[in-house]
Amino acid sequence: MSTVVKEMLAARPAAPGGVDRDRLARCIEECVTCAQACTACADACLSEEMVADLTTCIRTDADCADLCTATAAILSRRTGHATEVTRAVLTACAAACRSCADECASHADRHEHCRICAEACRRCAQACEDLLSSLT
Amino acid sequence: MSTVVKEMLAARPAAPGGVDRDRLARCIEECVTCAQACTACADACLSEEMVADLTTCIRTDADCADLCTATAAILSRRTGHATEVTRAVLTACAAACRSCADECASHADRHEHCRICAEACRRCAQACEDLLSSLT
Amino acid sequence: MSTVVKEMLAARPAAPGGVDRDRLARCIEECVTCAQACTACADACLSEEMVADLTTCIRTDADCADLCTATAAILSRRTGHATEVTRAVLTACAAACRSCADECASHADRHEHCRICAEACRRCAQACEDLLSSLT
Amino acid sequence: MSTVVKEMLAARPAAPGGVDRDRLARCIEECVTCAQACTACADACLSEEMVADLTTCIRTDADCADLCTATAAILSRRTGHATEVTRAVLTACAAACRSCADECASHADRHEHCRICAEACRRCAQACEDLLSSLT
Repeated sequence: MSTVVKEMLAARPAAPGGVDRDRLARCIEECVTCAQACTACADACLSEEMVADLTTCIRTDADCADLCTATAAILSRRTGHATEVTRAVLTACAAACRSCADECASHADRHEHCRICAEACRRCAQACEDLLSSLT
Repeated sequence: MSTVVKEMLAARPAAPGGVDRDRLARCIEECVTCAQACTACADACLSEEMVADLTTCIRTDADCADLCTATAAILSRRTGHATEVTRAVLTACAAACRSCADECASHADRHEHCRICAEACRRCAQACEDLLSSLT
Repeated sequence: MSTVVKEMLAARPAAPGGVDRDRLARCIEECVTCAQACTACADACLSEEMVADLTTCIRTDADCADLCTATAAILSRRTGHATEVTRAVLTACAAACRSCADECASHADRHEHCRICAEACRRCAQACEDLLSSLT
Repeated sequence: MSTVVKEMLAARPAAPGGVDRDRLARCIEECVTCAQACTACADACLSEEMVADLTTCIRTDADCADLCTATAAILSRRTGHATEVTRAVLTACAAACRSCADECASHADRHEHCRICAEACRRCAQACEDLLSSLT
């Protein structure tokens, strides 16, 4: 998918101001990857015998997926946008990703899907923070 | 819709802690109303002859719709959730709503759909802030 | 919310062709109501002691919420749209709503949230079918 | 992203029945890639001087993005799901992708972003149809 994200950024008639294009592309990609991983992780948790112990994980996964999806869309149309909204959504997305990474990591040793999801969440949180720190 | 939001909140086996139920119900309802109004406003803008002057409005509408949809979903599953994520998404949603309200209000005298949308955005921003201030 | 949906439809500069406005408004409203009810029902199921018996319900709720949200957005921008896509998404949404209504109804006697959700799903399926049958 | 989609499918405790895993993984990935490309294409169209000629493209992009996002989520939780809903959403998604591919292709010679988006839509329509034809 990386190629398409970058090609679309390069093809825009108006370059987004005040943003590092590589960090923007990476953040969009990590958001969509993380959203999918979280939705799949919630579904995998529902198939576990110990599902009753995983309800917090399922909810955290779902919240994280919703925020990552919204953030990816908002970043994908970031051409001269109100920076305050961009900052706020990146802050919220990073918080959801960190929360979900912590939750998934706490039982990653027993569930491979939680291990993979925790890593996707950590990468996405980092990508959001890297983009945030570069916004001017 | 108000009835269903409240009935569902009342029917939950575990009451969400640290949250005022009336403010939660109102915030959920304003979020879904605002998301729909923003999507419809963006579409109405695309039908205006002066669409070239409304591109910022169309983008702001779309961002606001995405955040309101995510916020409504996250609030709808708020049973003992990480308060930090709830706070961050409400802050982001209020920022998007205020931004969209200001943009729509700036040409509300010429476009009735922008006037209606600006009001929905202001009510939603207020509902997010009211809920935020009540979170403990 | 009903008022805003109708006001926005009335305020559009270009009236959508080949569609009954009242059925369109009702379908949009039932979709957003149903999406919220399904998300809340899935969350309520996660709080039930017998969550292990409700995993199909939680998945069906989540699928239905996703389709209702997409359908509400697509219908909200229906100004002269490709009717084939409108038909296909309404067909899919009605199928998801019927499936979720059947699943929720099967344990509605034990879970009030499933009873309320089943009703919201049935109304939404009917609204989708009524709109479908009126499309020309 | 491909790696994560496949790893998550492999890590699920219950393998989805009646579905070809490679086609499922590819379809999920094409859906999220297409959703992002469509959102970016709509935004790029809004930056074109001839935006008034691109309003159909912007709407078609937005509809396609909404359906691809919903389809990716529904497929990501496809563990023993009602096949009728899966079929209906794949049919709707393929219809939206074909419609958007045709619209974007009609001015792909003038707008690079429409050319890239048309290709993403065609690949996604094909992936939906390939998955549909393999469902048992």
